[in-house]
Amino acid sequence: METNGATGLDDPAYRAAVVDLLGVLAYGELTACIRMATDSDLAPSLRIKAQMAGFAATEYRQYEVLVDRLGALGVDAETAMQPFVAPFSAFHDRTRPKSWVEGLIKAYVGDGIAKDFYREMASFVDDETRAAMDHALDDAGAGDFIVSVVRDAIQTDRTATGRLSLWGRRLLGEALSQGQSVAVERDALSGLLIGGGADLTAIGQMFTRLTDRHSQRMARLGLSA
Amino acid sequence: METNGATGLDDPAYRAAVVDLLGVLAYGELTACIRMATDSDLAPSLRIKAQMAGFAATEYRQYEVLVDRLGALGVDAETAMQPFVAPFSAFHDRTRPKSWVEGLIKAYVGDGIAKDFYREMASFVDDETRAAMDHALDDAGAGDFIVSVVRDAIQTDRTATGRLSLWGRRLLGEALSQGQSVAVERDALSGLLIGGGADLTAIGQMFTRLTDRHSQRMARLGLSA
Repeated sequence: METNGATGLDDPAYRAAVVDLLGVLAYGELTACIRMATDSDLAPSLRIKAQMAGFAATEYRQYEVLVDRLGALGVDAETAMQPFVAPFSAFHDRTRPKSWVEGLIKAYVGDGIAKDFYREMASFVDDETRAAMDHALDDAGAGDFIVSVVRDAIQTDRTATGRLSLWGRRLLGEALSQGQSVAVERDALSGLLIGGGADLTAIGQMFTRLTDRHSQRMARLGLSA
Repeated sequence: METNGATGLDDPAYRAAVVDLLGVLAYGELTACIRMATDSDLAPSLRIKAQMAGFAATEYRQYEVLVDRLGALGVDAETAMQPFVAPFSAFHDRTRPKSWVEGLIKAYVGDGIAKDFYREMASFVDDETRAAMDHALDDAGAGDFIVSVVRDAIQTDRTATGRLSLWGRRLLGEALSQGQSVAVERDALSGLLIGGGADLTAIGQMFTRLTDRHSQRMARLGLSA
């Protein structure tokens, strides 16, 4: 089923970029699964707790799809994920939620930025890889659920709006800063953008799209970006 | 597909017992899923972390099977689980693992006692309910995995054996104590045992079997019961 010749997987630079992309996305899903399940423990009701655990289980299944795709490329998933353990840890250490609502906003805003970025990258990869990525990028309704729960929580605590807006801005800043340090360290990944024909202007436009979509998410939450 | 008449689901006492049994098992699976995912965050390697998250996802699917069975009986899962939230919280508050290995032992030993008890109860219920329970009682290899990881951890830290053996004994004590308080509060559940023909001798023998199997699990871990 591999179409190496046609899709450039015999080009070592392209192959390294795809492995990096699948690795960072897989580790992102695994981490998102664990965070969501951990945060669900603080949920104020059984209904919300069960739903959050369900989203965690979905994220695990998406992780498995990415591991399978890595396997099809002959790559061990742990090896592919390892380079991204430290940047994810750094991001999470710098953005520890102080409450359950902060945790949910982090899941929505953080996953949102990351997934927008992966969607941008998906246009540079072969069909099979893109199919695995698309599967992992479906949020299975988690976003709508978080928006409705956070809006409810804000409604009963109006003073929270300013604090949570600041929290969203901090998440964006930390995500972009960790993303940039990954790009600097992983030549293959940034090579994929450049090799795909993206010049500095195009990359600048991509960042504008990422921050625009972040602002839209914050607005959906009832917060200011 | 219901066989109410044949299986006694039109008997309110039996029906209440089945709802309790499915409710406690469902909440147990949901809690086990969340604990396993939370504990996975402390895992010493990416391989172990991913495996633990996988067991958490399996537990969520088992939870869903029980929710479906409750739905088939026309019962809302949250309503069925609610009575067991407090006893589970009490158990978890009294048995907070101080390390990742203690968490794994708790998952193995705690789940083991609970599942042995549910297996005993499964012989008193109708076929459809038993099928849903059997599905939820399959540990999907989690036990073997935990045994191998804990044995490895003990091998490199011989002084841990005594401490972890004590931990296992405390888990058994707390599990039996919370189990007993549930039995006292939920008449229907204990009625199922008595109504199923279990006299005090039979119940005593059941407890002997539960503690025997606990000892076997501790021995598998390389610990003394």
